[in-house]
Amino acid sequence: MEQRKRLQHWRDQMSKELDKVMDFWIQHSEDKEYGGFFTCLSQDGAVYDELKYLWLQGRQVWMYCRLYRKVPRFHRQEILTSAIAGGEFLLAHAQPSADSLKCAFVVTRDGRAVKVQRTIFSECFYVMAMDELWRTTHKGLYKKAARDMMDQIVHWVRKDPSSLGRPELPGADSVNAMAVPMMLLNLVDQLCEEDEEAAKTYEELEVWSVGRILQHIQRDGQAILENVSEDGKELPGCMGRHQNPGHALEAGWFLLRHASRHSDHRVAQTAVEKFVLLPFHSGWDQEHGGLFSFQDVDGHCPTQLEWSMKMWWPHTEALIAFLLGYQETRDPQLLDHFQTVFDYVFTRFLDPEHGEWFGYLSQEGKVALNIKGGPFKGCFHIPRCLYMCEEILSRFLEEEDKTTN
Amino acid sequence: MEQRKRLQHWRDQMSKELDKVMDFWIQHSEDKEYGGFFTCLSQDGAVYDELKYLWLQGRQVWMYCRLYRKVPRFHRQEILTSAIAGGEFLLAHAQPSADSLKCAFVVTRDGRAVKVQRTIFSECFYVMAMDELWRTTHKGLYKKAARDMMDQIVHWVRKDPSSLGRPELPGADSVNAMAVPMMLLNLVDQLCEEDEEAAKTYEELEVWSVGRILQHIQRDGQAILENVSEDGKELPGCMGRHQNPGHALEAGWFLLRHASRHSDHRVAQTAVEKFVLLPFHSGWDQEHGGLFSFQDVDGHCPTQLEWSMKMWWPHTEALIAFLLGYQETRDPQLLDHFQTVFDYVFTRFLDPEHGEWFGYLSQEGKVALNIKGGPFKGCFHIPRCLYMCEEILSRFLEEEDKTTN
Repeated sequence: MEQRKRLQHWRDQMSKELDKVMDFWIQHSEDKEYGGFFTCLSQDGAVYDELKYLWLQGRQVWMYCRLYRKVPRFHRQEILTSAIAGGEFLLAHAQPSADSLKCAFVVTRDGRAVKVQRTIFSECFYVMAMDELWRTTHKGLYKKAARDMMDQIVHWVRKDPSSLGRPELPGADSVNAMAVPMMLLNLVDQLCEEDEEAAKTYEELEVWSVGRILQHIQRDGQAILENVSEDGKELPGCMGRHQNPGHALEAGWFLLRHASRHSDHRVAQTAVEKFVLLPFHSGWDQEHGGLFSFQDVDGHCPTQLEWSMKMWWPHTEALIAFLLGYQETRDPQLLDHFQTVFDYVFTRFLDPEHGEWFGYLSQEGKVALNIKGGPFKGCFHIPRCLYMCEEILSRFLEEEDKTTN
Repeated sequence: MEQRKRLQHWRDQMSKELDKVMDFWIQHSEDKEYGGFFTCLSQDGAVYDELKYLWLQGRQVWMYCRLYRKVPRFHRQEILTSAIAGGEFLLAHAQPSADSLKCAFVVTRDGRAVKVQRTIFSECFYVMAMDELWRTTHKGLYKKAARDMMDQIVHWVRKDPSSLGRPELPGADSVNAMAVPMMLLNLVDQLCEEDEEAAKTYEELEVWSVGRILQHIQRDGQAILENVSEDGKELPGCMGRHQNPGHALEAGWFLLRHASRHSDHRVAQTAVEKFVLLPFHSGWDQEHGGLFSFQDVDGHCPTQLEWSMKMWWPHTEALIAFLLGYQETRDPQLLDHFQTVFDYVFTRFLDPEHGEWFGYLSQEGKVALNIKGGPFKGCFHIPRCLYMCEEILSRFLEEEDKTTN
């Protein structure tokens, strides 16, 4: 009964918080004139910059569609309308050149490209947005946009990155950066939902992505390193020793979703032990609480100035990872860790006055930036976490009720 | 007599600290095998990464030569030998392509390019290194390297930036970023030292650079903004409102050097009022002391995560700016401000145990990164400040003695 109470409390808090967070974005972020979303929002929701960052445009379209499609209380016309306007904004303005699928990183309010990154991530969030829009509206053009872009991304990653525009340099070893296979595994998860044909199409890519993620288990299984060589060896210097606990935890729950789809208990076990528990134990600040943003596996001081800051997103990944880990293993220590993170998050990150969470705390847990959105924080990690936790916890509660009755 | 004591105390502290700081770099940073300098140094001087960042290579060559040439106690063969080895490393490895003067941003220990930035700054520090090497060794090839690169930089800035590799994008307005004319004014100062012919060659560029810097006085003369339009108007959004107090103070003393060379009292007055006092008053943290790294002129929270950190270099610029400002205006409040910064710096940044300063403090003044060197911190701002302050304070002391006798 104690267990049920705890699950119930968490579920109720997650649901209430999801409503408040979505209210904030729905109220403040929509650009009714041009479509798409303002994401540079002050503590109270005021727009402090009109630039549109494309990672965040794609993510917000995805989030709106996903909630509309899966959570009955968000099945509202206004949410669908905004998501479609965001999707149309992306279709019209994401690609600065008609000759290439390369997307901008940031565009003006009316869609003119300001900056283009020589990476694949704007494009990945574009795929998420388009695939989810297709699942929500059943319009073929969104599906085609998602699939065409996915083909292009896979080409860049596995065949030829040259049209990304990054020059080949003699001192730059090619690197297996964990972000890339993680992102691809997440896209495969997205594209294959209830779609046997897609599952077949992307089967080999999924296996490849999982393999590339597992290469990041280093130091005799005692550490996850963000960057390894193409053949899975540790790289020299800071880049080789770099750790990102939030990323490892996120990779952990991506692997757990994969393991669950394929009933692969071995991968599930590895995900929990190596990608969830290891980074949590080494990445949690024993003095002040919260997850460090970056670490050096040998204990050197990282060169990233924000290394000791406590950011919103690693904590959201940890919450999802512990619940999915528990779902797979039923190891009760995972729920205790969930409790630790939950307590830190609900005490430190929430803004009871204006809604939505603060994103950037000092090592000591003080709000260091009071913005609610910016170039890298939008309507994504927090509602994704709250929605997933609500769903998983509801499932646990149903199970509890079944065993009790 | 009180005044003399104060000047004497400051001068002695600066001299002592200059010796300690240079000892640190001479002892720990030199790569005896390949030439050039390690700059990724831990608190105790241990090398934690062997990558060589070219801004810092050029700056260290400049610093060694300048001290060798100007300060008798540093006129030592070992210093000259290291400077030449650093210069030869740059000549051999700075440019990844034989077809272009474009320099890398970072290279491996043995000089293979790892990353190239699409800006002019590696090249600017290359010019500083080569010109100072020429003045120290009188070898013509260094002078030629400096002048050829200077021509290339001026071509990029004023004629055609296309070979920097940055694509033109429809939403990216062209910007007058203060860093560019500042850097050019600093290079003109370097290239024209006791050289009438160079002074003539770069006369128009100097005037242009000063004009471009003065365009950053905005808001009816009440604020320095880092980025303005090409015609000197405020830009929209965060970029337009961005302030960097340390940069403004540095521009202030660059302008004061220019004013002093040309006996231009009007520019000197503007430099002190607008580029030294304004940023100091708005950028100094009244609660915890120290200069903020970044601010938003309308008081919004900056999006740079390190905005409230106290970094070493703005404080070194402030120390130089207050002394040069006093030299030009004899306004005693400038020495009081110097005292404020001096006290903060000598209490917070110094490391009595291992020498050299910490670079990155939290808003509250706690050491946030204990590295002594990294991708952006090397042997430059601190010894340049200490050397310049020692020199200026020595001049003030001589004057005091003359008036007293």
